[in-house]
Amino acid sequence: MDVLIQNKMITKKQNNATLLIYCPDQKGIVATVTEFIHKNNGNIIDLDQHVDHNEEVFFMRAKWDLDEFVIPREKIGDYFSTLIGERFQMNWQLYFNDQKVRMAIFISNLSHCVYDMLSRQRSGEWDVEIPMIISNHESLKTVADEFGLPFFHFPITKENKKEQEQKEIELLKKHNVNLIVLARYMQVISDDMIQQFPNKIINIHHSFLPAFPGAKPYHSAYERGVKLIGATSHYVTADLDAGPIIAQGVAPVSHKDTVENMMRKGLDLEKLVLAKAVWAHIQRQTLVYNNKTIIFE
Amino acid sequence: MDVLIQNKMITKKQNNATLLIYCPDQKGIVATVTEFIHKNNGNIIDLDQHVDHNEEVFFMRAKWDLDEFVIPREKIGDYFSTLIGERFQMNWQLYFNDQKVRMAIFISNLSHCVYDMLSRQRSGEWDVEIPMIISNHESLKTVADEFGLPFFHFPITKENKKEQEQKEIELLKKHNVNLIVLARYMQVISDDMIQQFPNKIINIHHSFLPAFPGAKPYHSAYERGVKLIGATSHYVTADLDAGPIIAQGVAPVSHKDTVENMMRKGLDLEKLVLAKAVWAHIQRQTLVYNNKTIIFE
Amino acid sequence: MDVLIQNKMITKKQNNATLLIYCPDQKGIVATVTEFIHKNNGNIIDLDQHVDHNEEVFFMRAKWDLDEFVIPREKIGDYFSTLIGERFQMNWQLYFNDQKVRMAIFISNLSHCVYDMLSRQRSGEWDVEIPMIISNHESLKTVADEFGLPFFHFPITKENKKEQEQKEIELLKKHNVNLIVLARYMQVISDDMIQQFPNKIINIHHSFLPAFPGAKPYHSAYERGVKLIGATSHYVTADLDAGPIIAQGVAPVSHKDTVENMMRKGLDLEKLVLAKAVWAHIQRQTLVYNNKTIIFE
Amino acid sequence: MDVLIQNKMITKKQNNATLLIYCPDQKGIVATVTEFIHKNNGNIIDLDQHVDHNEEVFFMRAKWDLDEFVIPREKIGDYFSTLIGERFQMNWQLYFNDQKVRMAIFISNLSHCVYDMLSRQRSGEWDVEIPMIISNHESLKTVADEFGLPFFHFPITKENKKEQEQKEIELLKKHNVNLIVLARYMQVISDDMIQQFPNKIINIHHSFLPAFPGAKPYHSAYERGVKLIGATSHYVTADLDAGPIIAQGVAPVSHKDTVENMMRKGLDLEKLVLAKAVWAHIQRQTLVYNNKTIIFE
Repeated sequence: MDVLIQNKMITKKQNNATLLIYCPDQKGIVATVTEFIHKNNGNIIDLDQHVDHNEEVFFMRAKWDLDEFVIPREKIGDYFSTLIGERFQMNWQLYFNDQKVRMAIFISNLSHCVYDMLSRQRSGEWDVEIPMIISNHESLKTVADEFGLPFFHFPITKENKKEQEQKEIELLKKHNVNLIVLARYMQVISDDMIQQFPNKIINIHHSFLPAFPGAKPYHSAYERGVKLIGATSHYVTADLDAGPIIAQGVAPVSHKDTVENMMRKGLDLEKLVLAKAVWAHIQRQTLVYNNKTIIFE
Repeated sequence: MDVLIQNKMITKKQNNATLLIYCPDQKGIVATVTEFIHKNNGNIIDLDQHVDHNEEVFFMRAKWDLDEFVIPREKIGDYFSTLIGERFQMNWQLYFNDQKVRMAIFISNLSHCVYDMLSRQRSGEWDVEIPMIISNHESLKTVADEFGLPFFHFPITKENKKEQEQKEIELLKKHNVNLIVLARYMQVISDDMIQQFPNKIINIHHSFLPAFPGAKPYHSAYERGVKLIGATSHYVTADLDAGPIIAQGVAPVSHKDTVENMMRKGLDLEKLVLAKAVWAHIQRQTLVYNNKTIIFE
Repeated sequence: MDVLIQNKMITKKQNNATLLIYCPDQKGIVATVTEFIHKNNGNIIDLDQHVDHNEEVFFMRAKWDLDEFVIPREKIGDYFSTLIGERFQMNWQLYFNDQKVRMAIFISNLSHCVYDMLSRQRSGEWDVEIPMIISNHESLKTVADEFGLPFFHFPITKENKKEQEQKEIELLKKHNVNLIVLARYMQVISDDMIQQFPNKIINIHHSFLPAFPGAKPYHSAYERGVKLIGATSHYVTADLDAGPIIAQGVAPVSHKDTVENMMRKGLDLEKLVLAKAVWAHIQRQTLVYNNKTIIFE
Repeated sequence: MDVLIQNKMITKKQNNATLLIYCPDQKGIVATVTEFIHKNNGNIIDLDQHVDHNEEVFFMRAKWDLDEFVIPREKIGDYFSTLIGERFQMNWQLYFNDQKVRMAIFISNLSHCVYDMLSRQRSGEWDVEIPMIISNHESLKTVADEFGLPFFHFPITKENKKEQEQKEIELLKKHNVNLIVLARYMQVISDDMIQQFPNKIINIHHSFLPAFPGAKPYHSAYERGVKLIGATSHYVTADLDAGPIIAQGVAPVSHKDTVENMMRKGLDLEKLVLAKAVWAHIQRQTLVYNNKTIIFE
């Protein structure tokens, strides 16, 4: 891994593809897909499958080495679709490891998550591009400056929200952003914007959902006297704090913890849970079905 | 500890007192209480204090060795009350370590918690008395039989509930029961009974409250697609699943887990979280204030 | 799951096979094995594979429904071996879900693990047979009596060890025992006995190995001032406390914890880590290679 | 907390003192110390005590509000020493909350820990001063530049080590550094330097000590097939990786994890465990006795 030999970076050039599939369950899907890869001289690196027996839906992730694969990469999708995808009524996605995720980070006034994400990218732990930071406040422009990143300030009011979001969408599209991370961004994203980025907006909420949705979850946790605080990372949908959960974490608290203490303890929880979710997404390990996630780890 | 030398039990005879206090906060309480113990030749073994600055309430637990204490144990309460308690408007409880908790276990059809609790008592880990097991079903009478414990069957219907609970209360009082543990007892306890045992009924609920209160929490957790399941142990109050929380725990789940798997993984969680709460109670480490617990660990 | 409906036990009759494989890695193994199951009308329930790229070894676990499988179960092994196993130089094991593990529990003077295991079996959580408890002491005969199980007392001295172990082996073989669980059994098992039960003896050691092997790990942990205590469950090999690790767990400790406290906190850790390892074994999720385990969860 | 209202920073000016004590145990210490604070009009904010009954040593941490305290802060030490400290043969330290820790960060080629620490300081989570970053390599000068911090490069060879360390010591003393954090600094600190900063050098080691001390712990963990990797933060002493442990953490790994994966998973572990230890130190919650730490949380 690059990060570990930072000074003498000798990255092995990798050349592989990841296929994510779901379709109605039936016999023989695994055999058919692995046969497709095998026959065409692909070497399977990772294979994971799951069947939801309630819904009778089949899920699969396959990652294989393309070095000796006989189908040219630009035609793999076509061939797969024709030979297998249509036959099994598959919903599928195909990714190549050299196509980096382009991630925009949305923030408000808290910096712990954005610092954590920028550090992961800068150190080489995350192999992503971060073309911009967007905020509804100017307070954290300094963070973008420290890391030499473009910072866009879109102040949001009730009146200008629709308009500002349109500008944001344009900017994001223009820069080919394909992942939006809400790193303690304290604004609700409207439906219009969500529909432009389906399953491509990840939020971190500072409670173990479904407990304490909405505003001020640490205050509610304190009031209720819980012994664990939590954080939840999820894809954003039209229902506030009700999208498909990607990752959750908790930390112990006690009667000694004030609301402020809970907030402080929550900082690490939030940044770790968010990072876990983003990592799963950029590794192409996530599938969304029926408002739940399948995470192939 | 006895449990560790089971065969050659050489228990050190201990002779100590535990004092639990809360009162309006003011300067000098710690100094006054520790002075009281010190001047009368008590050796403090454990001391813990907490101030709730929102409510301006002071909480304290002190445990001290009675061997050379000059006040006779039957008079400690009187002296303490007269010299200190009244002056500071204290609410206080005094316990001696040789007064064992007498615990009744209420169960329905699931045996994992009751087995766990009986094992802890039988192995010497818990120094308590268990005069009886009570159930609304007969299915687990075998467990009581295995451990040679009295088993009382009180089938509950809408019609007979009040009457049956009266009989239970009589039985419990007759046997000097001072702690009721609802070990996955699938019946709501009515207010009348709760008032007979204030802060002396401990329940285990199979979710991380306040998420998923009420019936079938694992089904709800599955539906929501959470990545953690939980268990919560709390004192029982008139509000269902809303009493003061004593202990909580979680365990990871994934898209692979069916409802049945979650239930299975929950078994360990439930028994451990319940055991943690009961342990805190029998060690006299718990205080209840304002529907929250202070746990002096 | 049976345990959850104890009173009205309606177990779905299941009929499935589990195949565990390892062999030199090469392309096409997954495709070939899944094809074998698929072509013969087996429905794959679980499939998991792993490649150790250092050793170039392929590992796989497949579980499938036998209801419509066209090869009779007594011939599956033969067919598989002839058609696939030999060709890929496979080391394989085949299990049917109705062949219950027959487990003997070895204990000394501590009862927490044995109580936990018996409870799991009795409640239906573990679908195993426990034909006997063996101990080098008589102190815990009461536990066997409570659960109505045969108890065999084999006191061990330096002089009689070889002889006593021979008697134990005979007894175990006579009762078709195929798993031995050392539930805090405080005797080293000699090589002769281990060779009779290769990868079929599971031990629980009360530290996070490789830290603190051998005797008195809690004392050593206390001396070193660690902030976590641990427990490790592993298959027993000729090297003391150095066999393939199946499961590990830790629990926080602090400066407040005496050695006795660490021992008490360790009780839960030991029983849970041991139970996790035994569960993996009885679910046929474990493979041993190169003194490490592959655990297909 | 500042971090939570970054934009409209309204810090309550606090004025308090923290006293850390240890001495031979005897009756009445708590009463005497709390009386001292109380009589002089100090309001106790936090009080924690511990008795090591093996060593018969008493430990205490007291934090109190100075607003109405009648002894001037520059004389508190004198008065305390004369009235109480000498009488009880106390070893004591006194800190005021407005004296910020001045921390130097030592790094080599890995940036995750230093990024994490700088982010915590920059966001206001840690109220410390960081006058410099020191490294034996130049590779991470960029990190210092991003945050606008002085970066000093001291390349170390066998030959120049003594000399270079002398220069480092001078530089550190000149800038009143009172805490050195080795944030994956891959050089052994020599005794001379350690003696200049007793219990003021914190290291992070990438294993759960005492397992896998020394070089390449992840490789050793992989070889042994452990199911948990760990990290340990400790004060540096003359014995390599054997100093008093402040904090430890673990993370699960499986047969799927290569050495590189373990290293990646270890990044979060290392930065969190180190941050936990540094937090305890800067909150004045740590005492060292007998090569162990007392952590008053």
